[in-house]
Amino acid sequence: MNAADVDQQPARTSDVWTIVVAGGSGLRFGSRKQFVELHGRSVLQRSIDTAAGCSSGVVVVVPQDAIDCTGIESSDGVELRIVAGGDTRAASVRAGLAEVPATTGVVLVHDAARPLASAAVFERVIDAVRAGADAAVPVTPLADSIRTRSGDPVDRADLVAVQTPQGFPVGALRRAHADGADATDDATLVQATGGTVAMVDGELWNRKITDPSDLAAIEAVLEWRASQ
Amino acid sequence: MNAADVDQQPARTSDVWTIVVAGGSGLRFGSRKQFVELHGRSVLQRSIDTAAGCSSGVVVVVPQDAIDCTGIESSDGVELRIVAGGDTRAASVRAGLAEVPATTGVVLVHDAARPLASAAVFERVIDAVRAGADAAVPVTPLADSIRTRSGDPVDRADLVAVQTPQGFPVGALRRAHADGADATDDATLVQATGGTVAMVDGELWNRKITDPSDLAAIEAVLEWRASQ
Repeated sequence: MNAADVDQQPARTSDVWTIVVAGGSGLRFGSRKQFVELHGRSVLQRSIDTAAGCSSGVVVVVPQDAIDCTGIESSDGVELRIVAGGDTRAASVRAGLAEVPATTGVVLVHDAARPLASAAVFERVIDAVRAGADAAVPVTPLADSIRTRSGDPVDRADLVAVQTPQGFPVGALRRAHADGADATDDATLVQATGGTVAMVDGELWNRKITDPSDLAAIEAVLEWRASQ
Repeated sequence: MNAADVDQQPARTSDVWTIVVAGGSGLRFGSRKQFVELHGRSVLQRSIDTAAGCSSGVVVVVPQDAIDCTGIESSDGVELRIVAGGDTRAASVRAGLAEVPATTGVVLVHDAARPLASAAVFERVIDAVRAGADAAVPVTPLADSIRTRSGDPVDRADLVAVQTPQGFPVGALRRAHADGADATDDATLVQATGGTVAMVDGELWNRKITDPSDLAAIEAVLEWRASQ
């Protein structure tokens, strides 16, 4: 527990910064999925806008060669910083973390490729960090049965899928990344340095875009939501 | 290995039967998702049609009170039987299995709520059973990080998500269900009786419908595929 990292801070969004990681080269996807438009706003812009709703500042980490042509815009009163990512996801998070002001209390890390994360899930993560966790992650149950690659059944009731945004007292995340470790999951790095991890409710459609068909599906879900 | 169950059979679809399990009451979903229409065909009809493409017969297991109003149709040359399900998924599979002819070599079990499974994944499962497996299941990698419910990180690279259709030499599935065991995954039952499990490539969009928003997404994926 490193509650001191947050207890010094007032309970308001002005001490929250979000790092939106959009550093992917799109090699597997075929194009840069973070810049594809969904109903008039790019995947990246949607992720930024939701983050901006509960943050005083957003750091967007993009590939070096895209830094001058992201087409992204800030929201009123929210500081937006754009930095170049590194060779790995962890290096990109570190590049973003270097831009987070020293006065920040809570830092969130969010995958740009999860444009349907709601404001509510951001708030749940922030609340769990303010309540004292060294890391807070949104989780969902698994819909499919699970096996190991070697074929052994695993009880899916014992497992959860971890989404982003993940939240941390800024000091806990800085310590976790201090030795340049590589990992795709920041909470795992914080846990490796002795931190506690809180799990909050994730969301069915806070899925990571991995295939072009996911974009069509996510667009449909946006329309479906608008019709409810 | 119970290769004798299949080696007696010629390599043609006439010895394949598929059990399509549509027994869910829809209590969690809010309505009976298997009867919802997707572009003019119900979820259930789509699952039946794909199964019929590689089977000589299809047994559809539906709730007792829906048995006279499924609205489903058979394909030319494919026998269609409709039976009432039981209280659990395993009981519904057993009800379907009782309708599978004794001459059948390979039996598949498919969730009606996975209407986007392709003919190709059915064929891969059938091929693996013909090659000697006691159970064959389609699997996909996991997109999210995974943790245990108690918060410990689990290496997702070691795990796969299991879909349907699952395939079996009919004798292996009958033995697995002989003692009335309950399980949501038939391959796990077969494995518990000493059978081997083969894993074949699953499909990104062979997802199980669990929420009304999934229907909108699946409809969009159907349109996206038609446009490619």
